[in-house]
Amino acid sequence: MNLIDSSSLAGVVADIVPCDARYIAEAQRHLDDLTKPQGSLGRLEAIAAQMCAIFSGNLPRHLRRGAYVFAADHGVTDEGVSAYPREVTAQMVRNFLDGGAAINVLARLHEAELTVVDVGVDAEFENAPGFCAAKIRRGSHNMRREAAMTHEELAAAIKVGLRQAQRAKDKGQHLVAVGEMGIGNTTAASAIAGVLTNQPLDALIGRGTGLDDAGKNRKLQIVEESVKLHFGAVKGTPGPLEVLRCVGGLEIAAMTGFILGAAAQRMAVVCDGFISTAAAAAAYAIAPQVSGYLFAGHCSEEPGHRYLLSYIGLTPILNLNLRLGEGTGAVLAMPLIESSLRIFSEMATFSSAGVSTKNK
Amino acid sequence: MNLIDSSSLAGVVADIVPCDARYIAEAQRHLDDLTKPQGSLGRLEAIAAQMCAIFSGNLPRHLRRGAYVFAADHGVTDEGVSAYPREVTAQMVRNFLDGGAAINVLARLHEAELTVVDVGVDAEFENAPGFCAAKIRRGSHNMRREAAMTHEELAAAIKVGLRQAQRAKDKGQHLVAVGEMGIGNTTAASAIAGVLTNQPLDALIGRGTGLDDAGKNRKLQIVEESVKLHFGAVKGTPGPLEVLRCVGGLEIAAMTGFILGAAAQRMAVVCDGFISTAAAAAAYAIAPQVSGYLFAGHCSEEPGHRYLLSYIGLTPILNLNLRLGEGTGAVLAMPLIESSLRIFSEMATFSSAGVSTKNK
Repeated sequence: MNLIDSSSLAGVVADIVPCDARYIAEAQRHLDDLTKPQGSLGRLEAIAAQMCAIFSGNLPRHLRRGAYVFAADHGVTDEGVSAYPREVTAQMVRNFLDGGAAINVLARLHEAELTVVDVGVDAEFENAPGFCAAKIRRGSHNMRREAAMTHEELAAAIKVGLRQAQRAKDKGQHLVAVGEMGIGNTTAASAIAGVLTNQPLDALIGRGTGLDDAGKNRKLQIVEESVKLHFGAVKGTPGPLEVLRCVGGLEIAAMTGFILGAAAQRMAVVCDGFISTAAAAAAYAIAPQVSGYLFAGHCSEEPGHRYLLSYIGLTPILNLNLRLGEGTGAVLAMPLIESSLRIFSEMATFSSAGVSTKNK
Repeated sequence: MNLIDSSSLAGVVADIVPCDARYIAEAQRHLDDLTKPQGSLGRLEAIAAQMCAIFSGNLPRHLRRGAYVFAADHGVTDEGVSAYPREVTAQMVRNFLDGGAAINVLARLHEAELTVVDVGVDAEFENAPGFCAAKIRRGSHNMRREAAMTHEELAAAIKVGLRQAQRAKDKGQHLVAVGEMGIGNTTAASAIAGVLTNQPLDALIGRGTGLDDAGKNRKLQIVEESVKLHFGAVKGTPGPLEVLRCVGGLEIAAMTGFILGAAAQRMAVVCDGFISTAAAAAAYAIAPQVSGYLFAGHCSEEPGHRYLLSYIGLTPILNLNLRLGEGTGAVLAMPLIESSLRIFSEMATFSSAGVSTKNK
């Protein structure tokens, strides 16, 4: 796989500037001068400092936000790995376009402009506001029998994500949530997580949208067989693009492209749950400096999520036992990120407020 | 101590209607019909169901919010138990009135109307918007030598809180955050926590606003001596009002009154950190049914907080390593509570959206 060497992705990776730790130290000095005991705002202080680094010390006054939901079907659903039938992907995309899903409610409330991107759903959609038609094929191939994507399909899926990142930048967005919809995609994400983190698959596999024990065992077997088929003969960790291509999905590859593109454009990216974090893990494997631009919105109930967070080095902002996807956990974290910026920008300092500092 | 038998507090306690579990079951049935896998919104679903019980199934369309910060000084600061000098209480109240503290920033952002109540600060304040002058005395007595309050002072402090709860109701508020400011008040809260939860004091005592090891040991010793002075001869757990009176504080007693009054008025109350939760624990000991009206905004870094949460039976919404107080962690949880209500009210159902349910 040589897309990483191709002009487009290599150029994007080269554009991802590592966040400068000097901005973090400078931000912490300011935070320590605000009228509160030092460090007493915990994670909010770390979030504010990271935002300062992402924006090179020039925090936006108003944090313009977007939420991007990438949707696709998965060939591996032929193997019976999901609690819901495959057509639910298309039905939920229609629900997104009608405004009735959880992500619609949360994006409206928290003022994130929602874009739904069809990268590979096995259905056709009417055009609608906030919808982006970018279908590559009607679902990935069945990874248990062949690679989920051809080289060309993978490159096209990544480009879908890169284009959305450019669009977010063009809209002036500073903070973007990345989420997904795709029946079967916890199966693909489990395979990606297993190969990238080198953790045992049975520790990573969960119930997805609600499998029983037999269904979960079946899913484990399918993931094991798929990983063995594609990487059984590979020594060491396979390249992240080949992992995405063989055991990923069209929406997952698009999210990887989106995350790399957003970081290259110096936007802050909030990952959602297990699947979007699998995409982020692939982005991190391609370009480790991407992690400075990433926030983990929450820690999902899906057991593999914590391994992926640890692999990238992210600490989740929320722990609400969510396991929905769609970007919901990412958008829910946005008011906390906004809170950290307001604290940074609006609080009085000890000297300006005439408050005594600590006893010596 | 017979305030619990007096007409005012006993009447308030009698007015706290236990939340009806039928509303929780009914809410869960509705949540299970929304277009998401059952239970996939985790804590948000539990929060929405609890709100349905608090409002007897009639959720407010717009969640009007208030934040109440009760401030007082503590006689025990004479013993050198705090990292900051006593005058910081008054300085921070002025900072609140000038709009420069963390709680001001967060209350503005999350649309909670802020009220600062002087229950016993050792200073005088000019009147200002959002300020309520209700000083009982300029700081509690030193609990290491005598009871922190007389019976009359305790009754007056509780009434300050009850009046604020009435005021919140009169303003049409549905959701109120309770916070505090008072140099020395983690010492009082540690004593309350130790007596009510019967946990070893050395497990409960923390660094407050930033004590070093020697300061923390000194604080432990002062709390041990205070608890022994007042309750050394008492068999079993002393009554909660006597605990508040002997080792509490004016702002803590006011918060207990506020919490009881808010529950009696069927408002949802979000506790903040260790000190406001100590007040909630006293309210719970007085009237266990109050717990149905309570949310724990977050889990503080102060080690005693988790014991108090467990004593009341509360699960914190956020875990952000906060240890500031002022109601900050409570107000930060408000967008999540609002999110849970919007999810409940605005999401499509499986049938309305034409989405297939789970495979049988």
